[in-house]
Amino acid sequence: MDYIIGMDIGTTASKGVLYRGNGKKIEELSIPYPLIQEQVDQAEEDPQVIFNAVQKIIFDLSKRVAGKIKAISWSSQMHSLIGIGKDNRVLTNSITWADNRSSQLVAQAKENGLAQDIYQQTGMPPHPMAPVYKLLWIKEENPKLFAQVQKWIGIKEYIIWRLTGTIVTDTTMAAGTGLLNLHTLTWDRKLLDKIELDPEKLPNLAKPEYVVGKVEAEYVQKLGLNSETKIILGASDGYLSTIGVGVLDKKYFALNVGTSGAVRAIAPKAIVDSKNRFFCYPVDKSHYLLGGPVNNGGIVFEWARKTIFGPDQTAEDFINVAETVPAGSNGLIFHPYLGGERAPIWNAQARGSFIGLSRNHTKPQMARSVLEGIVFNLLGAARGLREKIGEPEALRVTGGFVRSDFVRQLIADIFNLPVVVIKNDQSGTLAAMFLAQLGLNEEDSLDKIVKEIDDSKVYFPNQKNVQVYQDIIPIYREVEHDLDQSYDKIAQFQKKYPKLFE
Amino acid sequence: MDYIIGMDIGTTASKGVLYRGNGKKIEELSIPYPLIQEQVDQAEEDPQVIFNAVQKIIFDLSKRVAGKIKAISWSSQMHSLIGIGKDNRVLTNSITWADNRSSQLVAQAKENGLAQDIYQQTGMPPHPMAPVYKLLWIKEENPKLFAQVQKWIGIKEYIIWRLTGTIVTDTTMAAGTGLLNLHTLTWDRKLLDKIELDPEKLPNLAKPEYVVGKVEAEYVQKLGLNSETKIILGASDGYLSTIGVGVLDKKYFALNVGTSGAVRAIAPKAIVDSKNRFFCYPVDKSHYLLGGPVNNGGIVFEWARKTIFGPDQTAEDFINVAETVPAGSNGLIFHPYLGGERAPIWNAQARGSFIGLSRNHTKPQMARSVLEGIVFNLLGAARGLREKIGEPEALRVTGGFVRSDFVRQLIADIFNLPVVVIKNDQSGTLAAMFLAQLGLNEEDSLDKIVKEIDDSKVYFPNQKNVQVYQDIIPIYREVEHDLDQSYDKIAQFQKKYPKLFE
Ligand SMILES: Nc1ncnc2c1ncn2[C@@H]1O[C@H](COP(=O)(O)OP(=O)(O)OP(=O)(O)O)[C@@H](O)[C@H]1O
Ligand SMILES: Nc1ncnc2c1ncn2[C@@H]1O[C@H](COP(=O)(O)OP(=O)(O)O)[C@@H](O)[C@H]1O
Repeated sequence: MDYIIGMDIGTTASKGVLYRGNGKKIEELSIPYPLIQEQVDQAEEDPQVIFNAVQKIIFDLSKRVAGKIKAISWSSQMHSLIGIGKDNRVLTNSITWADNRSSQLVAQAKENGLAQDIYQQTGMPPHPMAPVYKLLWIKEENPKLFAQVQKWIGIKEYIIWRLTGTIVTDTTMAAGTGLLNLHTLTWDRKLLDKIELDPEKLPNLAKPEYVVGKVEAEYVQKLGLNSETKIILGASDGYLSTIGVGVLDKKYFALNVGTSGAVRAIAPKAIVDSKNRFFCYPVDKSHYLLGGPVNNGGIVFEWARKTIFGPDQTAEDFINVAETVPAGSNGLIFHPYLGGERAPIWNAQARGSFIGLSRNHTKPQMARSVLEGIVFNLLGAARGLREKIGEPEALRVTGGFVRSDFVRQLIADIFNLPVVVIKNDQSGTLAAMFLAQLGLNEEDSLDKIVKEIDDSKVYFPNQKNVQVYQDIIPIYREVEHDLDQSYDKIAQFQKKYPKLFE
Repeated sequence: MDYIIGMDIGTTASKGVLYRGNGKKIEELSIPYPLIQEQVDQAEEDPQVIFNAVQKIIFDLSKRVAGKIKAISWSSQMHSLIGIGKDNRVLTNSITWADNRSSQLVAQAKENGLAQDIYQQTGMPPHPMAPVYKLLWIKEENPKLFAQVQKWIGIKEYIIWRLTGTIVTDTTMAAGTGLLNLHTLTWDRKLLDKIELDPEKLPNLAKPEYVVGKVEAEYVQKLGLNSETKIILGASDGYLSTIGVGVLDKKYFALNVGTSGAVRAIAPKAIVDSKNRFFCYPVDKSHYLLGGPVNNGGIVFEWARKTIFGPDQTAEDFINVAETVPAGSNGLIFHPYLGGERAPIWNAQARGSFIGLSRNHTKPQMARSVLEGIVFNLLGAARGLREKIGEPEALRVTGGFVRSDFVRQLIADIFNLPVVVIKNDQSGTLAAMFLAQLGLNEEDSLDKIVKEIDDSKVYFPNQKNVQVYQDIIPIYREVEHDLDQSYDKIAQFQKKYPKLFE
């Protein structure tokens, strides 16, 4: 009875990691599932399909140790929304963070001041990812459905409900709805009144390490578990991947750059920003997860690799070429907003650009400027945090984009901070496993997590490059400001001629 | 004695065309020479080297017809400046239009209002190409030289002086100095006073068809001419290449796009613009050459071909790929200002950009947007003319950039005007030859020039594309405005780190 499964319910796949009681990883399994995108801006998932994937992973991992699973704990994608009706009927798909159909309502809320209230009270920046805006959208589009739903939950709550029969959410997931009051850590009554949502329709709240209960008999058998297997409530992947790389307080910032990216920090109190630049999600009354999610990470690198060079060129080829150009790409600036952007500019209409071309700029400068642009934008996402929490001692970085020495050094030079590379790519499930140990009283603090982490690889800023970047970064930002309105018009043009974009 | 040589003194080469008396071309010869660029922004040529090239061409063409040359007439690059001292000593190189060393003085003149005066009185937009600014620069940098010079002339005056012993310039070349009064068609006394230049130091003025005189005995012999060979004064290449494609009045605009480009028209009176958008160079009191010179033509296409695709891809490959994308390049905008820009934005610090990238933009959209961007900028250069002279019936187009059906149609769609393709690539020398016939009283009007021109190939605008362009062009322009200040800062950054740009 010595094993724990850390499950991560991602947007494109679920992953399970089997840990021994001492925290050592034994095995890992992952099963992908599709996004449903049948309308413009729609991005849904079928919760039953995700539940099937989760069941298969648990079954296979449990079999590996003859069912001796003492607990299953959860890391989960944030901001999903599922409506449950009478008789436990599931009335909607899981509407994911990537669904943009409420963007019109976000724009309205920005205009009438509601968005600002929501941000100040709940720490949720104005963005269609947030369930609060999705609820407003459903209420407007489909008032009948809005009335029929008895409980609004997210994908983690759904899975745990299926396994245990209990509907409950943790503070970090609740924070991701935009409905949780930052200061009281309870559902925000005033806000619920404003959007006419009965608080009874939201799940109860508990701490991440809360032991929800045992797995229902049906699933004990079906998944090859045992009658004592406990379900731990778990938390959001944003929070867990932060503590999972050893960022437990404001000493470090966590920077993850995979397909998309995020910069995150833990502050000892709630901090919001007059410019809505970062989210502030409570964990408990002395820990707040602050940060900015960034759309344009490795996905832009991938685009640039294929567009500038071609599908046959590897990521390494790209970086080797970029490396031949000095810092600043000879004054060529790249905006990475190919997919609009969340932090730091929160503008879904933003677009990408190469700016400042002269005749002696060719592919190598374009390549380097792409890498620099992606990192300038990450720096922008971290800017509000540095201003409000203070300077960290170092960045702790993870993700596919930081695989090369070159990019790691680039980050150190652009942030003017040491960069500590964290090898562990299980940060979310590792931290989920620690939550289980806390919940089962086998550990009494998260500090021990840090012991599991290899942080020996450090890159220090090169001051010559730092100087160049400090000259060009203000121009990058100014150009961003310059183009704000025009990006909007370009996006409108692109929408006006949809047939031209098939 | 039936032959005429039309000579074109270009920036990179001189070209001579031998014509029979009836206007038919017999032979053509061209000899290149180098630019001298030893300092930043310098662009000079050795007048003796150019004279050598001219002699060689005349010698070879004359030999072809046993010296039976009745006249030699001239088309010439504009804006060059050469200082002649005592005893006919040549004190400077020919400082060409491409020399930017007076840009600081242009900026000053813009600030203190002198530039505006110059434009209003002489039709010369504020730009370092103009001899008026070069003189101010020499006066400041090298007052001793400024005092020593007895005559300031251009390259055509220099060559004719060497051949005939006479120093004289024509109205169209004089207009290119920025010192000729638009209304009186004489050197502007007020302006000369202001810059402290003695009017005696400028050449006498005559009409383009003026017969300067016979070739001096020394050169009759050396060049294998005969004692009756006449030198006709000739005119600027800008004027001659305009009438040489049949643009004799405001019915048509001439659009030439080779390495660089220009749009030109002939107006019946002097017209200047409150925004300095176009030049206005007098020919005589009822013909004014209006237009805008554009830096970024085929040279940008060339850059894009190599940068986006690679040196092995041909211009045709590029165009074939661009053709697969609909009008508007799926909302991707390209600014072609790789080499700063003259008309229509008159900003040497401007730079190139791709703006509006999303993930479904790849090479084909980039390719088409480059072609569109080059043409949007040409449209901008023509805009002031259309507003002030009125809409032409069609464009008459020439140059390497308009070689393909695709680009010709693109111009028709973007300008929303019929495009008449003119095959004759000798427009300058052909018109120079006509000047000789006028000077020798063999013709009495330029109208006959039109007979020599094949204008049978016409492209009409496609209204579906016109609509798309009319939506995206205002955004192109807005972005230009947005980035005005930032382009300046980028250019400064590029200058601050010159070592990074070797
Ligand atoms: N098929 C094509 N389509 C578009 N542009 C082309 C094509 N082929 C060549 N070019 C461009 O045409 C330019 C050369 O044109 P041209 O020979 O008229 O120039 P030029 O005489 O050197 O220029 P200028 O008239 O500015 O002195 C080159 O810059 C080249 O990139
Ligand atoms: N050597 C590399 N340098 C920079 N980026 C890379 C490199 N190799 C892969 N990537 C990028 O990393 C991203 C995937 O990172 P990963 O952390 O696996 O992503 P995910 O967010 O999907 O989990 C891809 O978008 C890819 O373009």
